[in-house]
Amino acid sequence: MRVLVTAGGTSERIDDVRGITNFSTGRLGSLIADAYAEKENSDVTYIHGKTAILPKNQNIKKIEIESVDDLLNSLETCLKQTNFDIVVHSMAVSDYYLAGTASQDQVVASLAKASQANLVATDIQLQEALETSFKNASESAGKMSSDLGTVYMQLKQTPKVIGRIKALQPATTLVGFKLLVDVPESELISVATRLMAKNSCDYVLANDKTRISGDQHVGLLLTKDGTYTYFETKRDIAQGIVKETTQGRES
Amino acid sequence: MRVLVTAGGTSERIDDVRGITNFSTGRLGSLIADAYAEKENSDVTYIHGKTAILPKNQNIKKIEIESVDDLLNSLETCLKQTNFDIVVHSMAVSDYYLAGTASQDQVVASLAKASQANLVATDIQLQEALETSFKNASESAGKMSSDLGTVYMQLKQTPKVIGRIKALQPATTLVGFKLLVDVPESELISVATRLMAKNSCDYVLANDKTRISGDQHVGLLLTKDGTYTYFETKRDIAQGIVKETTQGRES
Repeated sequence: MRVLVTAGGTSERIDDVRGITNFSTGRLGSLIADAYAEKENSDVTYIHGKTAILPKNQNIKKIEIESVDDLLNSLETCLKQTNFDIVVHSMAVSDYYLAGTASQDQVVASLAKASQANLVATDIQLQEALETSFKNASESAGKMSSDLGTVYMQLKQTPKVIGRIKALQPATTLVGFKLLVDVPESELISVATRLMAKNSCDYVLANDKTRISGDQHVGLLLTKDGTYTYFETKRDIAQGIVKETTQGRES
Repeated sequence: MRVLVTAGGTSERIDDVRGITNFSTGRLGSLIADAYAEKENSDVTYIHGKTAILPKNQNIKKIEIESVDDLLNSLETCLKQTNFDIVVHSMAVSDYYLAGTASQDQVVASLAKASQANLVATDIQLQEALETSFKNASESAGKMSSDLGTVYMQLKQTPKVIGRIKALQPATTLVGFKLLVDVPESELISVATRLMAKNSCDYVLANDKTRISGDQHVGLLLTKDGTYTYFETKRDIAQGIVKETTQGRES
């Protein structure tokens, strides 16, 4: 039984010393990987962020990634090389990457040019002027200066990683994750259900950050037929996911 | 002998699930804290970022911080409560905090308004229009939507933390840190020397990220009289700092 688990958070580099990071300890993902590794004849791969907690089992193959782009490359390589029976995608993936950085002076200079060139600058012209100021600034390397005053960062949406999994391996059992913050349970379930439909997940673990604290971790494991199981600790979630996805499966 | 060590990196919150993070494992800081703790009658406090490596010695008092603001508060509390003989400030502190987030539509709408209201918008008017779009957006909480298209973040400079240390405790021995990326050694020394003068440091550990890899870590410990000692590993840097700062000191 081949299993791929992703865990921890991605980090989008701003420069050599800082980045935009998704907070995730990877603790739940590490427990899931360890729970699969205990099964007979299992072969577990763990793709993880830089500061993620690692699983204890030494037989688990570990792959460290940093950015969403790294994650996509690693995932595609894995899914093209190996047929995985199960993929559990618990990693907190950035929705945005950094397209550019610009000082306030650079942005204002570019906008002023557009404003002077046009009697009344249109939305499109203003948008283009914004884009230009970031394009010019995006070639900075090394370490961003510490005294630029006010700085702007332009972020753009990353491709949705989870959508690639079933596209590359339609036969795998896919467990997606949805984390929201402080929403009613009904909303959590409906958002998780949409994620499941959109990405052909077989299960989605839905959770709310306000109901996670240390090992206490409320999670709802949704199935395709709309039922769900309720868990209250990370350990129970890990065991529950492994039990659900390996039931009746030959090892 | 009372010693305060800061280590790891700060993280400026974007929302409940992501932040702008300074990369720093805290490994060197943890070794420095442990090296002081081995000294007789030492009393070591360790202020550290969320993912920083912790020192091994169980007698060290640990304080976890997240943002630059947290760090300033913790540091001021410590320095007002206790007279430290030595302060080693190795933490990677963010130069910027997040002042606001805005979608492209919000920014363009605000700029268009300024452009329509003025025949040719001046730099000041454009700057104000930019500010307004971020001010309106800064009250978002919870989790930023994942499909805003292009997003802008406005960052502003944080107060310099190192400057507070001697201001609050002029008698302490202060070791500052300067990390640059891929510069000639002469530039590293001159930048570190300026840091020392500006913040009344007694020593500055100057290092270049391109010369750090695992335990190999080239570091120059500069003294006030312009001389320096050269180290090649984290362990040697830690021992060197402790030796220099505790020489001739009663415990």
